[in-house]
Amino acid sequence: MAGEWPVSAKEPGPRGPRGVGSDTRADILTAARMSFADKGFAGTTIRAVAAAAGVDPALVHHYFGTKDDLFLAALELPVDPRTVMAGVVDGDPATLGPRLLRAFLGVWDDPETRLPLVALLRAGLAGEPGRTILETALQRIVFAFLAGAVPLDDAERRTSLVASQVLGLIAARYLLRLEPIASMPAEEVVAWLGPTVQRYLTAPTP
Amino acid sequence: MAGEWPVSAKEPGPRGPRGVGSDTRADILTAARMSFADKGFAGTTIRAVAAAAGVDPALVHHYFGTKDDLFLAALELPVDPRTVMAGVVDGDPATLGPRLLRAFLGVWDDPETRLPLVALLRAGLAGEPGRTILETALQRIVFAFLAGAVPLDDAERRTSLVASQVLGLIAARYLLRLEPIASMPAEEVVAWLGPTVQRYLTAPTP
Repeated sequence: MAGEWPVSAKEPGPRGPRGVGSDTRADILTAARMSFADKGFAGTTIRAVAAAAGVDPALVHHYFGTKDDLFLAALELPVDPRTVMAGVVDGDPATLGPRLLRAFLGVWDDPETRLPLVALLRAGLAGEPGRTILETALQRIVFAFLAGAVPLDDAERRTSLVASQVLGLIAARYLLRLEPIASMPAEEVVAWLGPTVQRYLTAPTP
Repeated sequence: MAGEWPVSAKEPGPRGPRGVGSDTRADILTAARMSFADKGFAGTTIRAVAAAAGVDPALVHHYFGTKDDLFLAALELPVDPRTVMAGVVDGDPATLGPRLLRAFLGVWDDPETRLPLVALLRAGLAGEPGRTILETALQRIVFAFLAGAVPLDDAERRTSLVASQVLGLIAARYLLRLEPIASMPAEEVVAWLGPTVQRYLTAPTP
């Protein structure tokens, strides 16, 4: 791959600048997906992704911003989890659990946003390389955002406990479609599971 | 398949009765797995499994007992869930949640019993036909046993809520291996998640 670098994205091609630009974006995303899957988030560098895609690192930054942004773009999520999480963390910490579940159900109960996420989840639960990608997505996007915005004592432990309830809700409601939880109105799910998530986030350690 | 019926398992063959018997068992299990995967538990009959395996239905009963027993045999579980569940339901209903989790962790924390279950879980979460098999296994073995042994108000709703926590524990601890819940001592998992499972089983409807 190093031998191909630097093939400039601005090199004139038969399709003209617009065609070259969109191919370059796709090449960068493909290289990024391969690297995140293969080497994980920590092992991925903008420089190595640029080299694999045959472009200058500055172009990767120009198109995608930070490594976090590049990771999010590579996931092709149907919603920006940072926008969703911003609405969750804004409010009374005593009702954070129900708010988190309500936001989660808003995204997952809509088939249009659910389907790409189901694919990501299934790939993650099936083993590598999907596992690393899903773990990174949870750790860096959902958990880090949550822990950064809400003062949590022992944040890693608490967010992994929350994950154990929310991942199970996904498995029971959307993947296995176990009744009656699969057809339960969202507010009933919040009434049952909200106190669980709240306890994992803020209750004293048992 | 109907044309092959009835090829008697007792028909003398070159391998003698022992060889024929073990082939017949395997044929019945293969036919049973295909039927449970394809038609579900309700759509599977001993008669149809026998026909597909080319044997007399009486022989299926002789080898495997009831349809529940045949289903269990087809799953090739590393432990008999009915034995595990019998130890769970025996005791104070007020501590059923922690007992259920402790029994669950005893089976899943041991790699020898975990690995075949991970395969069953992954196949179930990946979609059909594994989904139907896993759903049936949960409904008929774990939930039915639990609801039959413990008086639960609104048992279906409560067992599906328990599933949402236990499936998530599997996903976080064993499939995604999210830290720190992946390495948490079993008793710490019980201390955190036990009250959740207990609430889903016996607390008043919120």
